[in-house]
Amino acid sequence: MGQEEAYKNNVAWFDGYVSRKDREKLHGHKGAVIWFTGLPASGKSTIAHLVEKELHKKGCSTYVLDGDNVRHGLCCDLGFSPEDRTENIRRIKEMVKLFVDAGIIVLTAFISPYRKDREWARKFFRKDEFIEVYMECPLEVCEARDKKGFYKKAKEGLIKEYTGVSSPYEPPENPELVINTKNYTPKECVLKIMRYLKKNILQGQRGI
Amino acid sequence: MGQEEAYKNNVAWFDGYVSRKDREKLHGHKGAVIWFTGLPASGKSTIAHLVEKELHKKGCSTYVLDGDNVRHGLCCDLGFSPEDRTENIRRIKEMVKLFVDAGIIVLTAFISPYRKDREWARKFFRKDEFIEVYMECPLEVCEARDKKGFYKKAKEGLIKEYTGVSSPYEPPENPELVINTKNYTPKECVLKIMRYLKKNILQGQRGI
Repeated sequence: MGQEEAYKNNVAWFDGYVSRKDREKLHGHKGAVIWFTGLPASGKSTIAHLVEKELHKKGCSTYVLDGDNVRHGLCCDLGFSPEDRTENIRRIKEMVKLFVDAGIIVLTAFISPYRKDREWARKFFRKDEFIEVYMECPLEVCEARDKKGFYKKAKEGLIKEYTGVSSPYEPPENPELVINTKNYTPKECVLKIMRYLKKNILQGQRGI
Repeated sequence: MGQEEAYKNNVAWFDGYVSRKDREKLHGHKGAVIWFTGLPASGKSTIAHLVEKELHKKGCSTYVLDGDNVRHGLCCDLGFSPEDRTENIRRIKEMVKLFVDAGIIVLTAFISPYRKDREWARKFFRKDEFIEVYMECPLEVCEARDKKGFYKKAKEGLIKEYTGVSSPYEPPENPELVINTKNYTPKECVLKIMRYLKKNILQGQRGI
């Protein structure tokens, strides 16, 4: 930018920011991102919202970013080509960075199909503030869950570039958590994630 | 999007979100945006950070978006052409919308030179959650403050499309607040803004 910086760097009476640490102290916990990834209908958004509920109960400041509030807003100009998917993840990463700096626990629920994009995003966070959660679920189970028939339409060619059908999904190699949504109930999935969070990012905070 | 929605709308065991109201209750105040606008070096970023400090002291969850954290991140692909400035404001509006939904008081400090862009952004918020603050300051005073010489360089043609020199600035017609940073000290400016916020968005909240 330059324009806005010029003034700020040059005025004697500028006496400091509220820091990330200040905001985290106010919220009673550190900022972090729980990055869900997986096939369409693997359970990302659902589990993200259920985990948010648990965190909120404990008094944590939370926010879920998903297709509903990002694909229709910030990224409404993007489609599903490989380039647009990469730009989608870039913008999400940038926004998440700011939410984390604001002292919020952000839960992102996007397919985020490319390993390289997720690995790129991870680099901008400390080890203890980026938790990648792979929603492991066989394609046929995801298909069976999808009552609106998006998978079917994709197979018929009515939806183009659909992940799992006509667009690739690359599972993570070393995610912090693997959640199997085929064999475990949502309650069990949430418990497993909460156990991880209590041990790794919430320990000693908010009375945990 | 469609892809992520499909699953979410169709699973029986999805039992609800944490709402904006829940998050606001946790923070003890409503989400809102204080939208600073004005010439380069009119004082936007400085006053925004000082107001954030006051709000934080009162226990409010706050965040400042400015050139430093947005122009280098989310909008690093954008320049200063009229189209790019409009896209810059569009993305900022989308992001602010999410922060406000997260129950945060966001302070934006961008030149945001076009009236139509600011008026467009305003439409997405309730009357009591969008506070436009015009930083009124004569061009020559802004120029004199700019010790890094951006205005000078712009006049010499070394910086293109610089607001106030080679790119227009359109002051708001009906901002919630006009802050004269030529005649008033920063302390006085902050006081005036805090008085407005206490009366209009914080009344009865956080013990105010």
